Amino acid sequence: MSSTYGENIKLSIFGQSHGGAIGMTLDGIPAGLPVDMDALQKFLNRRSPGKNDWSTTRKEADVPEFLSGIVDGYTCGAPLAAVIYNKNTRSGDYDELKDIPRPGHADYTAQIKYGGFQDAAGGGHFSGRLTAPLCIAGGLCKQWLEQVGIRIGAHVHNIGAVIYDDGFDPCAPEITSVGAEFPVLNPMIAEKMQQEISRVRSNADSIGGEIECAITGIPAGIGEPMFGGVESKIAQIVYGIPAIKGLEFGEMRLNGSTNNDCYTIENGAVKTLTNHCGGILGGITNGMPVLFRVSVKPTPSICKPQQSVNLKTGEITTIQVKGRHDPCIVPRAVPVVEAAAAIAIYDLILGNTQTTRRK
Amino acid sequence: MSSTYGENIKLSIFGQSHGGAIGMTLDGIPAGLPVDMDALQKFLNRRSPGKNDWSTTRKEADVPEFLSGIVDGYTCGAPLAAVIYNKNTRSGDYDELKDIPRPGHADYTAQIKYGGFQDAAGGGHFSGRLTAPLCIAGGLCKQWLEQVGIRIGAHVHNIGAVIYDDGFDPCAPEITSVGAEFPVLNPMIAEKMQQEISRVRSNADSIGGEIECAITGIPAGIGEPMFGGVESKIAQIVYGIPAIKGLEFGEMRLNGSTNNDCYTIENGAVKTLTNHCGGILGGITNGMPVLFRVSVKPTPSICKPQQSVNLKTGEITTIQVKGRHDPCIVPRAVPVVEAAAAIAIYDLILGNTQTTRRK
Amino acid sequence: MSSTYGENIKLSIFGQSHGGAIGMTLDGIPAGLPVDMDALQKFLNRRSPGKNDWSTTRKEADVPEFLSGIVDGYTCGAPLAAVIYNKNTRSGDYDELKDIPRPGHADYTAQIKYGGFQDAAGGGHFSGRLTAPLCIAGGLCKQWLEQVGIRIGAHVHNIGAVIYDDGFDPCAPEITSVGAEFPVLNPMIAEKMQQEISRVRSNADSIGGEIECAITGIPAGIGEPMFGGVESKIAQIVYGIPAIKGLEFGEMRLNGSTNNDCYTIENGAVKTLTNHCGGILGGITNGMPVLFRVSVKPTPSICKPQQSVNLKTGEITTIQVKGRHDPCIVPRAVPVVEAAAAIAIYDLILGNTQTTRRK
Amino acid sequence: MSSTYGENIKLSIFGQSHGGAIGMTLDGIPAGLPVDMDALQKFLNRRSPGKNDWSTTRKEADVPEFLSGIVDGYTCGAPLAAVIYNKNTRSGDYDELKDIPRPGHADYTAQIKYGGFQDAAGGGHFSGRLTAPLCIAGGLCKQWLEQVGIRIGAHVHNIGAVIYDDGFDPCAPEITSVGAEFPVLNPMIAEKMQQEISRVRSNADSIGGEIECAITGIPAGIGEPMFGGVESKIAQIVYGIPAIKGLEFGEMRLNGSTNNDCYTIENGAVKTLTNHCGGILGGITNGMPVLFRVSVKPTPSICKPQQSVNLKTGEITTIQVKGRHDPCIVPRAVPVVEAAAAIAIYDLILGNTQTTRRK
Repeated sequence: MSSTYGENIKLSIFGQSHGGAIGMTLDGIPAGLPVDMDALQKFLNRRSPGKNDWSTTRKEADVPEFLSGIVDGYTCGAPLAAVIYNKNTRSGDYDELKDIPRPGHADYTAQIKYGGFQDAAGGGHFSGRLTAPLCIAGGLCKQWLEQVGIRIGAHVHNIGAVIYDDGFDPCAPEITSVGAEFPVLNPMIAEKMQQEISRVRSNADSIGGEIECAITGIPAGIGEPMFGGVESKIAQIVYGIPAIKGLEFGEMRLNGSTNNDCYTIENGAVKTLTNHCGGILGGITNGMPVLFRVSVKPTPSICKPQQSVNLKTGEITTIQVKGRHDPCIVPRAVPVVEAAAAIAIYDLILGNTQTTRRK
Repeated sequence: MSSTYGENIKLSIFGQSHGGAIGMTLDGIPAGLPVDMDALQKFLNRRSPGKNDWSTTRKEADVPEFLSGIVDGYTCGAPLAAVIYNKNTRSGDYDELKDIPRPGHADYTAQIKYGGFQDAAGGGHFSGRLTAPLCIAGGLCKQWLEQVGIRIGAHVHNIGAVIYDDGFDPCAPEITSVGAEFPVLNPMIAEKMQQEISRVRSNADSIGGEIECAITGIPAGIGEPMFGGVESKIAQIVYGIPAIKGLEFGEMRLNGSTNNDCYTIENGAVKTLTNHCGGILGGITNGMPVLFRVSVKPTPSICKPQQSVNLKTGEITTIQVKGRHDPCIVPRAVPVVEAAAAIAIYDLILGNTQTTRRK
Repeated sequence: MSSTYGENIKLSIFGQSHGGAIGMTLDGIPAGLPVDMDALQKFLNRRSPGKNDWSTTRKEADVPEFLSGIVDGYTCGAPLAAVIYNKNTRSGDYDELKDIPRPGHADYTAQIKYGGFQDAAGGGHFSGRLTAPLCIAGGLCKQWLEQVGIRIGAHVHNIGAVIYDDGFDPCAPEITSVGAEFPVLNPMIAEKMQQEISRVRSNADSIGGEIECAITGIPAGIGEPMFGGVESKIAQIVYGIPAIKGLEFGEMRLNGSTNNDCYTIENGAVKTLTNHCGGILGGITNGMPVLFRVSVKPTPSICKPQQSVNLKTGEITTIQVKGRHDPCIVPRAVPVVEAAAAIAIYDLILGNTQTTRRK
Repeated sequence: MSSTYGENIKLSIFGQSHGGAIGMTLDGIPAGLPVDMDALQKFLNRRSPGKNDWSTTRKEADVPEFLSGIVDGYTCGAPLAAVIYNKNTRSGDYDELKDIPRPGHADYTAQIKYGGFQDAAGGGHFSGRLTAPLCIAGGLCKQWLEQVGIRIGAHVHNIGAVIYDDGFDPCAPEITSVGAEFPVLNPMIAEKMQQEISRVRSNADSIGGEIECAITGIPAGIGEPMFGGVESKIAQIVYGIPAIKGLEFGEMRLNGSTNNDCYTIENGAVKTLTNHCGGILGGITNGMPVLFRVSVKPTPSICKPQQSVNLKTGEITTIQVKGRHDPCIVPRAVPVVEAAAAIAIYDLILGNTQTTRRK
C-alpha cells in the first residue's frame, strides 16, 4: 500500500505536483474533536516557499478546502477529506523528464515502475508538494495531541557543517514551540546557516542537513512491541517524506555504562537521569521526551550541468535542470517532520489499550 | 498491531524468553517454493550465542520445528508455522524485575504498559531471543530471494570506535557472502574489534556499534511511493529489532552536486556512477545495490551497579544485573539485520505489479 | 477502519449527504490502465434517481471530477481521487433528526456513536448517496476486469413477492449484460414489479427485494483460504452498502448428493455439471461463474407516521418523514452491487500469486 | 491475506488436517485478562466429533497447548499462541485427491491454486479441522466479552426441512446459554432433527441446515460505518468457516411500514418494539440483540459414487469417498459460529473509541 498510512487511523494521500489537486483523506478520527482552521493555516504556512532569500520564489498558496468530516468546527465521525487545488496545472511537454532522468530525483525509478505512464510534470506524485497534504493531516493531529498535553516541535540541527549545539537541552520545553520561519534556537547560528545556504546557491549548488524533533508530555506506556514500536511507527512515516535518508532516536553513547539511563524519582514520578534512549525502551515510551533526528539530503535540483542518459536513444548526455529551486529544503522540512511525528503518535495513542493494574 | 508485519505476507512473532516456546507464523507465501532446512539452520546458527570469547556462554539450541506450511520440502500454500521450544522455561521469582527496572531495558515500560501482568522473566516478549523466529522467517525469505538472484549480506561496520573502512566498495558482491562467525571483511580489523570487546567486558561494561547491509541483484522498480517505499518498509521492520536506534540509507554528501548519482550506460544497462542514494530514489529501487547502516546500542545488561528505583516503595536504589550477558551484540545482530531486510524485500517483491510499458 | 476497503488496493470513501462533496481515493492501482470516462458515466447513471415513476424525483447529477491518478486517459500509478460536488449542501436545522430518530435509519446509532457531533443532514455519511463514490471505484474496476474477460452483471431477482424465475440459467452470459434502467431479464415481469412498486407507493409504504449477481469469465484459482476467500471479500464490501441485510452464494440443495457439483470435461476444460456452489469451493474460484444474491431491505423512509422517541425529553412521540423518497431502492442498488463485486474481485486478482506447477 | 483476521487484534490460523499441528496466534490482546482453561476446553468439546450417533466416529482430542501469551492464568500482553498437535499425521498416498477431485470439496480449487504442492491429505488447510483453532481464539474472546456482559449463543434453526420455529423469541436471553450437545431449544424437535440425520445417513447421503446466533448485552454504538460495520466484520469471518454459504441479519419484512423497528422507552432506556434489523442500523449496534442466521451446506463427503474427472489423464471417472464422515455438520458448527461472532465483536469493541457527548 503505497500512499496510505496508519493502523487506527487511515491516512491516504493523493495528487501529483501539476495535477488538478493534491489532498488527503483521514479515516478513523473520533467525532467531537475541535478543528482550529487558523492554527492549521499557520502551520501550513511554515512549509510554504517563496517568502525569503534562502528559498525558492515560486508562489504556492496552500489553502486546504475541507470536503467532508467537519461540521460546525468539530469532527463529525465521517472521514476527513481535504484538497489543495493546483493553480499551476500540467501543461506543456514533460516527456523530456521521462527520457532524460534528473540525477537524484525519482524520474528514472518512476519511469521503470510506471512504464512511461507516470505524471512526470514537476515530479508528479513524488514531488515535495505532496508534503502539503501530509501537513494538513499532521497539523490536525498536532492540535488534538496538544489538547492532551502532548507537544511536538522540531528545529534545524545543522545545515551542512554549520551546527547548532549551543548547550541545547533536549528535554527543554522550548523546542516544542519553535515555529519561526527559520527554526533554529540560536539567532546567531541561524544567520550563519542562512549565509551558508546563500553561499551554496551562488555556486549553483544545494545543501542538506539535519532536523531534530522532540515530543514532550507523552505518557509512559505508548507503543506496541516489535514492529509496532514508536521507532517503527515514526520511521515508516518519516521515510515517506521525500529527501529523508537517515533517522536516529536519542543519542547513543558507546558504552553501556554511559548509555543506560538510570532511574530516579522526582516529585513522586519516575524519571531517568539522562535521556540517551530518546524516551523509548522496547518500542514503548518511558515518559521522557521522545527525541529523534532525521537527515535531509541536499536538493537534487541544481543548476549545474550533470551527466544523465537518454533512455530512448541509450546515449549518455548532459542535463541542466531549469527553473528556480530551493537550494536547501531543510527549514521547510521542519514542519513536515513535526506533522509526520504527530500522525504517528496520534495513531499510536488512539490504538492504545487501557490496562488494568495488577493488585 | 504489535508483533505482526507485512502487506503481502503476514509475519506474526510470538513467545517470551522463558515461555514454553518462541515462534512465528508466516502467511501469504506462494506454494511450490523449496525450503533448504540445512541452509536455514546454518543461518540460524549465525545468531546463536555461546560459542566464543566475546559472546555469552549460555547455550541455546535454536532448532526450529515446522508445524505447518511445508510438505516434502516445498511450501504448500498454507501458512508456515515454526516454533523453537524453550529449554530454559520460566521458574523462580522474576518479580524483582517488575519492582526494580534495569536501566536501558524494557522492564519499566513493560511494567507501565502491561500493568504488572507482563512476563518479566528474561525480558519476556522484549528479549533478544525473539530475534530467533525473525531469523526463521528471514532465513526463508533470503533463500527465496537468492533463487531470483537477489542476495543480502551484512557485516560489522564498527565496534565502538574501531571502524572498518578499508577501501570498502559497497557495490562489491563480496559483502553479500559474509557469513563468518565474526562478520568483518578485514581479518585484522576483526581482531581489533574483538580485542575492544574483550577490553570492555573486563571493565564490566558493554559496547555498541554499527552494521552495514547490502542488497544486490535487486531489479529497478521495486517499492511503492511514500509510506510504502523501500526505506519505510525496511525501517519499520529493522526498528522492530531490539537495540537498533539508528538507520541510514546510502551515504549522503553535503552538497547536491556531489550527492547526486549521475547516470551512465554500461553494457546497455542504465547505472549510476556513484551510489550515494543507497539504490533508492523516491522510495523505489534504481537497480543499484540497496545499502543501509544501522546503529546497535551497547547491551544494557552490565555488571556494574546502576541507580534504579523500587516502583513498589518509591525509593531510589541500586541494581546489579546478574548472569552472563553479551558485552556486545553487534556481531550476533548481523544475521538478524539480514533477516529483517530479506522479509521487507520479499514482501515488496511479492506485491510488485507488473507494468506494461507505454509504446 | 470504517470507510476503507482492500488488501492490495486501498479504497477510501468520504463525504456526507449534504456536505461539500462526496468522493473516493483508490490507491494501489497499476499504471497504464485505460479509463473510459463515457462508459463510467453511463455506469454511474444507472444508479441515478429521478428519471421515472418508481423512483424519487430529486435531481442529482453524479458527475465525478478526477483530481489525480489519471493522465491522458490512463492511470499514472499515483492514487486516484475523484469527487462529486454536492449541489444540495447542508442548510437549515437537522437537529430534529438527532433528537427524534427515524425508525429503520442510522439516526439513532449515529447519535450514540458520534455523541451529537455527526452530520445528521440527509443521513450524513450513512446516506445512500455514498454509494455514488463506490460506483466510481467499482465502475473503473469493472472496466479493467472486462479487459481480461471478466464480466459482472446483476439483475433484480424479486420485488417483494414478485419474482423473476422464468427458467433463468445462472450460467448464461446474458446476465452480465443487463444494463437497462429496470434491470430484469423478462420485460413482462419487470412490468409487474413496477406495478407492485407503484401500488406500495400509493400506500405511503416501501418495499424490498433481492438482487442476483454473476461474475463470468473468472479463472479458477482466485481467492485465498479462510478469511481471504471470495465469499469473505465480497461479503465485507457488499455489507458496506446501506440496506443490504442478506447474502448467499450459489443455490444450496438440502442433500449432499444433489448439492455437490460433479465434474466433467468440456472441450478439454474442467467444468461442473451444475453450479450450486456459486463458482466457489474453499473460498477459491473453480472457473464456473461466481453467483450470489443479496437481500435489500425496504426503504425505511416512508410517509406513514411512525412511533419514535425524543432523545432529549425522553418522551415517546410520532415522526412523519418528509420529502420524496424511493419507495424501492432495489433497481438502483443493482449497479452498486456490481460495483462492490468488481472492487472485491479486482482486489483479489491483483493480489493473486502466479503458482508454478509441480512436475 | 488469507488466514489472518482482524483490525485491532490479529488472528492468524495455521495448520493442515494431517500436518504436525494446527493452531493460532492472536496478537493485540490487552494484558491482564483472565483465562479460564476449563471453560475453554468445554467450549472446544462442543465442536468435537465422535460422541454420538449422528456424528462421525473418528476420535480427535482437541486439547490446546498454549506456547505463549499467558502467565499465571492471565494474558501477559505478548501475542497468544496455541497449538493442537495432530495424532493422525500425514502418511500414505493422498495424491489421488489431487488427481481426482471430490465434488463439493476444495480439492480441485486447491490443485489449481497451489499447482500440486498443496497438502491434499484430509483436505489440508481447507479441512474443517481448522475450525478448532478458530474456536480457541473465539472461546477466549467469548470469555472476555462475558466479563463485560456480552453473551453469544447459537442454536440449530433447521436441519433440512425440519425447522425449529416454536414461538422462538429472538430477544430472549435463553439463546445465549444453549450449550448442549445438540443445541436446539425444543427437545422434541431436536429428536426429529436427529432422526432426519439418521435417515439421510442410511441413504449414504448428507444434509445441511441453518444456525441462528444472538449476541445479547452488546451496547449501542459498536461498529464502524461502511466496510467496518458489524455486518461486514461478522460476514468476513463467518464466510471463513468452511461450508457456510449464506448469512442474513435480522428478519426482513417485505414492506417498510412493517420492517422498520419503532422506538420506545423502557425503564428510561431507548429500545425498539421489534428487532427486524437484527440490532444493527448503518452497521452500528442499536443496543438490541444482534441476530444473524447462517446456512451450512450438506457435507460434501458422501459414500455415494459421484462423477469426477482425472486431472492427469483428462478422463471422466467416478469417485467414491472413503472413510466415515459426519452426515451433518450443522450441530458441530454451532460453537464455531459463536466463536467467529465472538472474535468479530471483540475486535470491534477493542477498536471502539469513546466519544464525548455534545453539550
